[in-house]
Amino acid sequence: MTQYHPVRFVDVKLEGRFWSERLDTVLKSTIPSQHVKLGEYGILNSLKLPKPTPPLRFPRHPNGFTVQVFWDSDVGKWIEAASYALSHRRDAVIEAKIEAIIDDFEKAQLPDGYLNCWYLGHEPDNRWTNMRDNHELYNAGHMLEGAVAYFETTGRRRWLDIMERYVAHIAQTFGTGPGEKRGYCGHPEIELALVKLYRLTKDKKYLDLAAYFVNERGRQTPHYYDVEKSERQRRGIDVQRYNYPDYEYSQAHKPVREQTKVVGHAVRAMYLYTAMADLAAELNDDGLKSACETLWTDVMETKMYVTAGLGPSAHNEGFTYDYDLPNLTAYAETCASVALIFWAQRMLHLDLDGKYADVLELALFNGALSGLSQDGCHYFYANPLESHGAAERWDWHTCPCCTMNVSRLVASVGGYFLSTAPDGVAFNIYGGVSATREIAGTKVALREESTYPWSGEVKISIDPETPTAFDVKLRIPGWCKDAKLSVNGTTIPVELNKGYHTIARTWQKGDKIALELPMQPERLYAHPGVSMDAGRVALRRGPLIYCVESTDNPGGRVQRISLPRTSELTASSQGGAIAGAVMLRADALASDEADWHDLYRTKPPKEVATRLTAVPYYLWANRGKSSMMVWIPEQ
Amino acid sequence: MTQYHPVRFVDVKLEGRFWSERLDTVLKSTIPSQHVKLGEYGILNSLKLPKPTPPLRFPRHPNGFTVQVFWDSDVGKWIEAASYALSHRRDAVIEAKIEAIIDDFEKAQLPDGYLNCWYLGHEPDNRWTNMRDNHELYNAGHMLEGAVAYFETTGRRRWLDIMERYVAHIAQTFGTGPGEKRGYCGHPEIELALVKLYRLTKDKKYLDLAAYFVNERGRQTPHYYDVEKSERQRRGIDVQRYNYPDYEYSQAHKPVREQTKVVGHAVRAMYLYTAMADLAAELNDDGLKSACETLWTDVMETKMYVTAGLGPSAHNEGFTYDYDLPNLTAYAETCASVALIFWAQRMLHLDLDGKYADVLELALFNGALSGLSQDGCHYFYANPLESHGAAERWDWHTCPCCTMNVSRLVASVGGYFLSTAPDGVAFNIYGGVSATREIAGTKVALREESTYPWSGEVKISIDPETPTAFDVKLRIPGWCKDAKLSVNGTTIPVELNKGYHTIARTWQKGDKIALELPMQPERLYAHPGVSMDAGRVALRRGPLIYCVESTDNPGGRVQRISLPRTSELTASSQGGAIAGAVMLRADALASDEADWHDLYRTKPPKEVATRLTAVPYYLWANRGKSSMMVWIPEQ
Repeated sequence: MTQYHPVRFVDVKLEGRFWSERLDTVLKSTIPSQHVKLGEYGILNSLKLPKPTPPLRFPRHPNGFTVQVFWDSDVGKWIEAASYALSHRRDAVIEAKIEAIIDDFEKAQLPDGYLNCWYLGHEPDNRWTNMRDNHELYNAGHMLEGAVAYFETTGRRRWLDIMERYVAHIAQTFGTGPGEKRGYCGHPEIELALVKLYRLTKDKKYLDLAAYFVNERGRQTPHYYDVEKSERQRRGIDVQRYNYPDYEYSQAHKPVREQTKVVGHAVRAMYLYTAMADLAAELNDDGLKSACETLWTDVMETKMYVTAGLGPSAHNEGFTYDYDLPNLTAYAETCASVALIFWAQRMLHLDLDGKYADVLELALFNGALSGLSQDGCHYFYANPLESHGAAERWDWHTCPCCTMNVSRLVASVGGYFLSTAPDGVAFNIYGGVSATREIAGTKVALREESTYPWSGEVKISIDPETPTAFDVKLRIPGWCKDAKLSVNGTTIPVELNKGYHTIARTWQKGDKIALELPMQPERLYAHPGVSMDAGRVALRRGPLIYCVESTDNPGGRVQRISLPRTSELTASSQGGAIAGAVMLRADALASDEADWHDLYRTKPPKEVATRLTAVPYYLWANRGKSSMMVWIPEQ
Repeated sequence: MTQYHPVRFVDVKLEGRFWSERLDTVLKSTIPSQHVKLGEYGILNSLKLPKPTPPLRFPRHPNGFTVQVFWDSDVGKWIEAASYALSHRRDAVIEAKIEAIIDDFEKAQLPDGYLNCWYLGHEPDNRWTNMRDNHELYNAGHMLEGAVAYFETTGRRRWLDIMERYVAHIAQTFGTGPGEKRGYCGHPEIELALVKLYRLTKDKKYLDLAAYFVNERGRQTPHYYDVEKSERQRRGIDVQRYNYPDYEYSQAHKPVREQTKVVGHAVRAMYLYTAMADLAAELNDDGLKSACETLWTDVMETKMYVTAGLGPSAHNEGFTYDYDLPNLTAYAETCASVALIFWAQRMLHLDLDGKYADVLELALFNGALSGLSQDGCHYFYANPLESHGAAERWDWHTCPCCTMNVSRLVASVGGYFLSTAPDGVAFNIYGGVSATREIAGTKVALREESTYPWSGEVKISIDPETPTAFDVKLRIPGWCKDAKLSVNGTTIPVELNKGYHTIARTWQKGDKIALELPMQPERLYAHPGVSMDAGRVALRRGPLIYCVESTDNPGGRVQRISLPRTSELTASSQGGAIAGAVMLRADALASDEADWHDLYRTKPPKEVATRLTAVPYYLWANRGKSSMMVWIPEQ
């Protein structure tokens, strides 16, 4: 089978309105404002060793940290996001800020390569003593991703060199060899970062280290987290910071190949599965691939919100049991949907199947993008599917992981549109991009034009330097019925194979493809196991999930609204649309609160006619406080 | 207006089947097994000062307590429950156990009267330094209630004397006088206990102390909880055990007379309001009465579950915002519904209005009684209105407050049936009781016979020693339509005044009243503000709220079931009934899960015909693990 690989973010130009606007906001607002926040909250100061200036806020965290153990990762992720942004438009001011951070890291690094500012600043003798809770390798992973991205954008090696020295130290410290610790991080992340480093350097030792961490995970007799705990007790050092009752929280309850159910902390799970899929691809490891497929099925069939949000529970920031998808209390962390995109992308390139791109797209336009405000400097950490009016975007968080996760996603979104193989190109997501790639030995200029996700009218130009035979694969989204396709004006019937239509022909300059993906407003129903959504309906148009928000539906909380099954849904960008969005409208009913005196009564509610307006879910909470719901009672 | 007073538990004999059975279970199973648990968990040992034996479990609580600060209260509440039970049937074994506990308390008490085993055993120098969090006066209140009950049942004064010495110490310690602390307990309880002591002793100083605690609560500039915190900081002692962000948690955010919204920890709120209503009655304090009425309206109109559960949130074990009544995650602590009964009873005797008795009854038969298993030794702390199958009754709890709250309620339930005034008697709750009371100067034998709550056929005998004129007031429950009434076989029209029908006549031996309260199965709808219940219906018959449980509705989780609006509900105790319960049945629909492959789809669920069986809510989770719901989707 032909293996497709993603076209990297640096090689794809975003030209469509939707993503250009988001990218511009990230460049102008998000990246600079995040740097300001990293300063204000003491995070940048925490890198200045040996004596960190006391942080300006959160002087004492309830868990006992005087600063957060994971701040290094936030800095790493900010550099990564900034680097992606710089690939679109270089910026000397931002680059100077990055260089200043690298200065701090360079000074902090020990001669043996070790580089974790929290341990160096607080408990230098205790490094690598609490893999389960204290995020050392997680931090290293994000710093490494930042270093790879910065190098890819700028070609500057300094931070990459620092990180390669650190990784060398890590490789000496962990493994199955004599004197090595058989540990792995409670929060997966370094594994996927090491695969990125391998792909950049082609140095197999990085892949081996990633494989060690993945394969060691969850082995028992004894469990490493018990081994290290005993060792801490023996040394009389801090025995317990967090108090998570089980290994499932960090997906360390059994070896990864034996895991069949998605459990624990959602972001940890997604980062782990991403690395597993990466390794399955790089090592042709069918066991890992098969484990990924089993886990994928589990999450898709029983655990994903209709917005591609993941993790219903704030308690463990993660998964509970099948069909437990509460709307009002949904945790659905932005990071988890961003990480689902990573995993889906890896799965897509293990097996070019549109079902993976469908989920990638769903998460991208809904559960992930909802984490970033239109102004680019307000965020959601949790992404509930319903609000009574209390949920509000914030400008920073004690744990700012989501802020940089959503900015690095948007700044690198170009990397998800296209995939290439030696003899073909695949269009996975639409929205207006261009790239020039070598396909079948020829340089081919590719341009896809559309106003996706607002419209499914897609025009594609294929311009090889010389006429060349290769495959053009066009994803027909799973939500789309009656897709229409023509090449140079000649209609051809759509033939789906795993969600893609393949046009195999000899392409020449000026060839045009027109793809029509009709976007009808639709109703979605949830599996009866999802009792929270019983008798309710969600609205979808194209890749976008909609919600009703009180901003567009005045007269009290939107929860009073219901939608008759027979009401026609109409789509339009007229009248109060935000961000050029297509809104959905329908005749609906609203319970008349004025008719009530008591909390409970024997007479059914009185319903009055109303008009419902729904907006794309990702746009909610951008116009002040509002009540909101995705799942609307249906009558 | 004639003031009615409750007839005390010791003066009412339970004869009806329903409560006789529950009482018998409490006597035989609950009280003895609770004593065993108090021993097993180290709670009894914690009273053995000066050196408490280490507790057998919970050697280190996450909050930092080596044992719970509120264990004294659990012992006090157990003695209270046991005393009520002993009033029905004396038991030398139980009495010996109580005397042994009193021995320990007697030995522990300091010469100045102070008696808190946690502080005496752990931080003897720090007593009264953390009123907000550490429950000293709360413990004293429960010990005092226990002492009053034990005296009422047995006539033995020893523990009452101990507690009066302790109260004298408390009265010297707190108040507005010079050198006195202007504190009050974070967890209200002692206030209502002091009113009980006043009612027993008629000593006004106890009422004054209760009034001080209630009136001082929530005063600012400075707030006492800040004063004591500063003092702890000055002394360098444990600054913070819990970390509740606001005064609302303990209803100390403003003076009680200015409080208009029900906030914070639900049990604390109910205990406080109970004391406020007590004081309003004893002191003819219209300001307190008015505050109680305002708070009553708030909770009834916006914050009470249909089961009379209170407090949607586990976070603060209490209230959130109007209409926030989630079913699956309902906290609805057993203690809160028990305490609602206390408050409702006090309100009823401030103003003999059936609306208070309606809520008393609702809480009694639903939200409170659900806390105790049929076998009498398993409990619910939280009482959700929906379960996906995980909720299970437990046999003990880190915080065992609910266990003894529900047992003391059941053992004293006789105290809620009747009220008397100098010239009348009121029947508030039905279910088979007898009592002999002096009314209008004559000894009157009263007997009410019924199989309530299963049937509304009530027969009442009024047997005065000599013919005497007085009022007999019969509560016509709020749920009842078309009540029928006859005296000595002669039908009389029901005339309602605040939920009661009054028969004013000269009564003589052999007079019989027949009251018919037709119990039709009914549907209840929730105010549109309660979005969780939109499009859903609850079932009620008489005072009982029903639920569907998978035990009676096999074929998967009950959440797949919906009830057409046109389905007839039938009531019957035939076929699989538990505890002699009347079950409700109806034709219903069930979503066909076999018809599904994906988590979401555009085709509505396929519904198949089924037969629904509903059981009284209080009986759920008595037959193994089950899924359950109170609010059923209606089609």
